[in-house]
Amino acid sequence: MIEYRNIRIALLGAGSVGAEVASLLLEQGEELGERVGAGLELVGVAVRDLDSPRTADIPRELLTTDAESLILGADIVIELIGGLEPARSLLLTALNSGADVITANKALLATHGHELFEVAEQLGAQLYYEAAVAAAIPIIRPLRESLAGDRIERIYGIVNGSTNYILDRMDAEGISAEEAQRVALELGYLEADPTLDVEGHDAAQKAAILAGLAFHTAIPLESVHREGISGVTQEQVSAARAAGFVVKLLAVCERLQDPDTGEDGVSVRVHPALIPRDHPLGAVHGGNNAVFLEAAAAGPLMFYGAGAGGLQTASAVLGDVVSAARRHVIGGPGVAESTHANLPVLPISKVTTRYQVTLEVRDEPGVLARIASEFSEHGVSVEAVQQSVSAAAAGGPEDGPATATLVIGTHAAREAALSATVAALEASAVVESVSSVLRVEGT
Amino acid sequence: MIEYRNIRIALLGAGSVGAEVASLLLEQGEELGERVGAGLELVGVAVRDLDSPRTADIPRELLTTDAESLILGADIVIELIGGLEPARSLLLTALNSGADVITANKALLATHGHELFEVAEQLGAQLYYEAAVAAAIPIIRPLRESLAGDRIERIYGIVNGSTNYILDRMDAEGISAEEAQRVALELGYLEADPTLDVEGHDAAQKAAILAGLAFHTAIPLESVHREGISGVTQEQVSAARAAGFVVKLLAVCERLQDPDTGEDGVSVRVHPALIPRDHPLGAVHGGNNAVFLEAAAAGPLMFYGAGAGGLQTASAVLGDVVSAARRHVIGGPGVAESTHANLPVLPISKVTTRYQVTLEVRDEPGVLARIASEFSEHGVSVEAVQQSVSAAAAGGPEDGPATATLVIGTHAAREAALSATVAALEASAVVESVSSVLRVEGT
Repeated sequence: MIEYRNIRIALLGAGSVGAEVASLLLEQGEELGERVGAGLELVGVAVRDLDSPRTADIPRELLTTDAESLILGADIVIELIGGLEPARSLLLTALNSGADVITANKALLATHGHELFEVAEQLGAQLYYEAAVAAAIPIIRPLRESLAGDRIERIYGIVNGSTNYILDRMDAEGISAEEAQRVALELGYLEADPTLDVEGHDAAQKAAILAGLAFHTAIPLESVHREGISGVTQEQVSAARAAGFVVKLLAVCERLQDPDTGEDGVSVRVHPALIPRDHPLGAVHGGNNAVFLEAAAAGPLMFYGAGAGGLQTASAVLGDVVSAARRHVIGGPGVAESTHANLPVLPISKVTTRYQVTLEVRDEPGVLARIASEFSEHGVSVEAVQQSVSAAAAGGPEDGPATATLVIGTHAAREAALSATVAALEASAVVESVSSVLRVEGT
Repeated sequence: MIEYRNIRIALLGAGSVGAEVASLLLEQGEELGERVGAGLELVGVAVRDLDSPRTADIPRELLTTDAESLILGADIVIELIGGLEPARSLLLTALNSGADVITANKALLATHGHELFEVAEQLGAQLYYEAAVAAAIPIIRPLRESLAGDRIERIYGIVNGSTNYILDRMDAEGISAEEAQRVALELGYLEADPTLDVEGHDAAQKAAILAGLAFHTAIPLESVHREGISGVTQEQVSAARAAGFVVKLLAVCERLQDPDTGEDGVSVRVHPALIPRDHPLGAVHGGNNAVFLEAAAAGPLMFYGAGAGGLQTASAVLGDVVSAARRHVIGGPGVAESTHANLPVLPISKVTTRYQVTLEVRDEPGVLARIASEFSEHGVSVEAVQQSVSAAAAGGPEDGPATATLVIGTHAAREAALSATVAALEASAVVESVSSVLRVEGT
């Protein structure tokens, strides 16, 4: 057997993931080397401050603040510092120096992925990023390779563990959104600034990455429709539960035809949605992630596991290290990123889904007919209506005129038609308020 | 961009999977070629009889009965004829001619995989087999690559759709094993000769393949402990349901220490087992498959989807075609099969699991103490005992002496100790019969 020189690995960043990667490389480098056929050598770890406290015991002589010099001597560069800069510049330096690069940086990929993939392809280098979506759950490689001979029609992803934890607690315990968020923060499921998670930014970045891979199309992050969970109430969650649904923050990526031109396109969106409780995604509890997809030949598939955590994310990085190291042992380029399909990303107004609309209406004769006509005038077909007397009505006459709650389920309708319907309902004299509008997926 | 010559693909077999693969290659070869950067050309389909009826419309001029000649002109050979011979010889011919090979033949891999992988490695050729386990569910590639930097501790697989369908019907509808098997046969979930599925042979082949990959160890098929579902009764299934469990045919692959020598080893076994209903595997219904695994860093992961079907299996084959074609475009060897760990495969007697034992005993004073002492004398610790008056007792004195049913749950115990306990119980004067012994997994 041919003996290869050691493969030199540079690590940028020693935070929660970086520290685990360093530990695993130091502890298991020899065994991993056997799987590869060459020694794996961690040649250095670039950090901002040599004296910061770290969760792993990294030998002092491996630490450096000079990331640029470290990169220039490496075969494989692992970027775990996060953020856009200097991560982007450092990865470009690494690619230009002939190294393969591994990153878990979803923000960077969703923002500058196209540029990075182009540079990598021109230079015959590889860019690995299994850890960027759903941590240790293998989803990037299956999409890039296993399903490369199939046609992905749709992806439903629960790709943000923090918001799934919050919604799951609200569902399981009937607690308010504020209370669930407080618990999530206490238990470390949520960052001190929860905006990235709660407002769906994190999920939108992952959706852009998944859709790009699945549809062979570059997806600009700003083309991803994004709604977070900050508007989701306990009333919505318990009403969903009573109706056999569960509220999840979904990343939905789907092929669809432009309803106006008939041309092929894709839609990428992140929003809370109702899904049936017996859907495989309905059983994804706590901080777990899952990616459910429908392929033309393979049918429905689901990939499930922990979506976060330093050690879990490190596992995905190490898998990429082994892939990259094997490529160094055997030579030649690997998998190229493909955007040959280049489908247009359609705006949310062109998407068709089912909806559930909850209204507070005046409890008087003829109201239901007026509401129904608002839907039909805008071309939205009503599938089911459920009426209940609302709390205000039960409170007695001193609370104002009697009102009733209407829950209206629609057939598949265009987003634009539904928006116009909701606007009309809000302006209607018989409607007190539109209390909830949720899309229904997975039925 | 460099233009490559067409990649020549030979297909051996045009059964339910082969016909779908041929159709997909003929219909989508151009689009797949774009993903690869070279044309994909189906140069021929080897069949036994040119005039057999087929489910797909394969142009007559592509058909041949001369598999050997077809192979010699191909870059990629896809083997979908099944069985050991001539599949083995044809794949060796293909490897020796310099082709990469793709197979969905689990029996062949479980029996002659070691030989085929060695030949492939010596020749620098690749052997792809994503379709051999769990059809379209990507599990081979994640094990080979995504988790290559992690340490797999345990795999629980529902890898046979026919038996899962039978057990699921028994669980959902309370029907007998015979009735469920009859329905499965009617609906095409079961072959006319159900032995391969029902007796666990099919699952054992897949378990050997999965364990080999996960533990980097060659697993002889005869070292896989195998029990089918033919002994599973409706009484067991409904008792399991009442206790919050579900009976599944599991393929269990795990690392364990030899309890006698302390040395590292692995256990590979297929048997019916009780798993908690709220375990992710508990929600795998009908003919679906799922592979649940626990990795040291990644934690628990699950891969779920259809485990059979011509089109679904063809999707996995096409993914391998794209991988193999990319390798032809870029040159150089790909992923080598690794058996560097070479752990011993321990016999079932050295395995430790929990058990649930159901006994019919004489309903008289002191029986429970005698039963309990049989367990403790053999070193098996009892966790819980549940007693109910059995049907025989309810029937009155004319049915013989009063008996009671005892359901005994044990703590983790060695298989050998449990077997000795069961033998002692069967010989005991106070035991009428041992009606059920089931392992409990996933708790």
